[in-house]
Amino acid sequence: MSDSESLEQIRSRIDALDNQIQELINQRAAAAQAVARIKQREDADAFFYRPEREAAILRTIKQRNTGPMGSEEMARLFREIMSACLALELPMRIAFLGPAGTFTQAAALKHFGHSVETVPMQSIPDIFREVESGNAQYGVVPVENSTEGVINHTLDMFIASSLSICGEVMMRIHHHLLSQESDLSKIKRVYSHQQSLAQCRLWLDRNLPHAEQITVGSNAEAARLVGKESGSAAIAGEMAAELYHLKGLARNIEDEPDNTTRFLVVGRQLASPSGEDKTTLMCATRNVAGGLNALLAPLAEHGISMSRIESRPSRQGNWDYLFFIDINGHREDENVQQALAVLERESRLLKVLGSYPNAVL
Amino acid sequence: MSDSESLEQIRSRIDALDNQIQELINQRAAAAQAVARIKQREDADAFFYRPEREAAILRTIKQRNTGPMGSEEMARLFREIMSACLALELPMRIAFLGPAGTFTQAAALKHFGHSVETVPMQSIPDIFREVESGNAQYGVVPVENSTEGVINHTLDMFIASSLSICGEVMMRIHHHLLSQESDLSKIKRVYSHQQSLAQCRLWLDRNLPHAEQITVGSNAEAARLVGKESGSAAIAGEMAAELYHLKGLARNIEDEPDNTTRFLVVGRQLASPSGEDKTTLMCATRNVAGGLNALLAPLAEHGISMSRIESRPSRQGNWDYLFFIDINGHREDENVQQALAVLERESRLLKVLGSYPNAVL
Repeated sequence: MSDSESLEQIRSRIDALDNQIQELINQRAAAAQAVARIKQREDADAFFYRPEREAAILRTIKQRNTGPMGSEEMARLFREIMSACLALELPMRIAFLGPAGTFTQAAALKHFGHSVETVPMQSIPDIFREVESGNAQYGVVPVENSTEGVINHTLDMFIASSLSICGEVMMRIHHHLLSQESDLSKIKRVYSHQQSLAQCRLWLDRNLPHAEQITVGSNAEAARLVGKESGSAAIAGEMAAELYHLKGLARNIEDEPDNTTRFLVVGRQLASPSGEDKTTLMCATRNVAGGLNALLAPLAEHGISMSRIESRPSRQGNWDYLFFIDINGHREDENVQQALAVLERESRLLKVLGSYPNAVL
Repeated sequence: MSDSESLEQIRSRIDALDNQIQELINQRAAAAQAVARIKQREDADAFFYRPEREAAILRTIKQRNTGPMGSEEMARLFREIMSACLALELPMRIAFLGPAGTFTQAAALKHFGHSVETVPMQSIPDIFREVESGNAQYGVVPVENSTEGVINHTLDMFIASSLSICGEVMMRIHHHLLSQESDLSKIKRVYSHQQSLAQCRLWLDRNLPHAEQITVGSNAEAARLVGKESGSAAIAGEMAAELYHLKGLARNIEDEPDNTTRFLVVGRQLASPSGEDKTTLMCATRNVAGGLNALLAPLAEHGISMSRIESRPSRQGNWDYLFFIDINGHREDENVQQALAVLERESRLLKVLGSYPNAVL
């Protein structure tokens, strides 16, 4: 048997596999349609998209994957298959913080797959309005937007909004050193957002120990300045390089290769438990120190761990401080319910912003 | 049997289908690895990506598709599956005309799937250099870039380049009416690229019969002007709206809903016949009228139809006119070979820029 014969044989095998895969995907699409019909019969306003079920499916796929295809890549393919099946029943519009091409759009497509329509919005309040009005089914917003400058604090939106958090997306973010210069030795000043400078500190110490570091409001602003100033460089992302016609002097200079940024999915829907969930709480208290104590004790008592806490001075209502807390677990979990009952008595205001699956992809 | 029981049953069926699909995708990935091993044994420089085979597979998938999933969507899923299988063997870098978020990047991802790395370049010559040097395996370039202004004529690049065309991508392009105003009756002037104004003529006649139409170099330029001028509107795409903070007064105003723009894939590779191919020729002649005649006759004689012809005054070499001609068929087809032999005698210069599969997706 010659090599070229066996190449032909393998190709026939691939063709046969493709035929089977296609047949099974169509069976899956038909089954998804059947699910939708039953749901609609039960409740005309039923949600076809179930974040908890999608998360559970993707987790299973990653766990049982044997290769040779990588687990991440396999999960990504199933994200697309599920996205295409869902689109058959319900074409989805997802509002995101524009412009097109930002990390937020990439996050929306990573979470919902490419069979949805992503709609760029000019501000975070616009996204909330678009979802509240039903023009979009879901919105995707950055939690902390270090790379493009914080305009509105996303979490503050929940004070006045009826929307819930029904998912999170983690995106790996890369920083580049951008400049008009093509030689590192020419760089006297480095501009960037404070957080980005911090994320590249080791690299800067090693490669530009004598350059002045100047903090500006956003990485895009840094790139804009550097576009007009010789002898300077900006730390910013791919898009800024293009917008301001800068060269990439060095790529991926972040100290932590796993530099990720978190985005939230907001909707009019409460996600059911998926087995691996977190819950975001908003609490208001009169003072930070006492308030914090009153919150931490009941969580610890019920064995609930926190993954994030942030206190913010309130500019609304008659309380002084707001806490945003991410805890592990779902609002329907018994220990979470018990802790929430205590928190409700202890704090001036308690609002569960959402229970939702941990990011899978 | 209650509704909720049968919902459970359908979901179990979906889970079982997912399990089978996953197993088959891994078998497909293993087979693709086997193909790569054989290819590499035969020729260390072998091309793992075969445009003609991918096109043939996608065509078959569309033709045999029974639904309920749509044929386009099914082909898109297989594009991703093939993309992921290929990435196991060879991580691909695709250079495109930046910035990120343009139609050209969307075209690159549509053609190669999301398992490739897309690298933004600042100009079309940069893309050619990146592919010629081997830094990127392929490049994606617009042929006529009406929406963003023509800077370099892409086809002129082939005069001095050794790269071949090895694919084409068709993208549906939408036009929007963008303005600072929120009321159509306030619009006195409409700015856009000539081609975009022409593509929205019916809509403009019906909705803005008294507005002045002003031609500018690109739709992005139109949006920039309108960002500074009240009472005006631009016809441009999604991205321009975001960049210049304009509102969408009306969406998808193009007269032809199938308004498509064409992109070319360039590489260092000659694509083999896929069964449905076209060939792009570059010919140089001393004068248009006589030159055209000498070209058309042999094509007609050999039953070859043209899908596109463009004459351009040459700024290089010792000829006066260049013709770029797309013909149906592959350079290896017998009738094409015969016609090319005649053309070679008749014209000052004949260069086959590439034979490649017709766009499938």
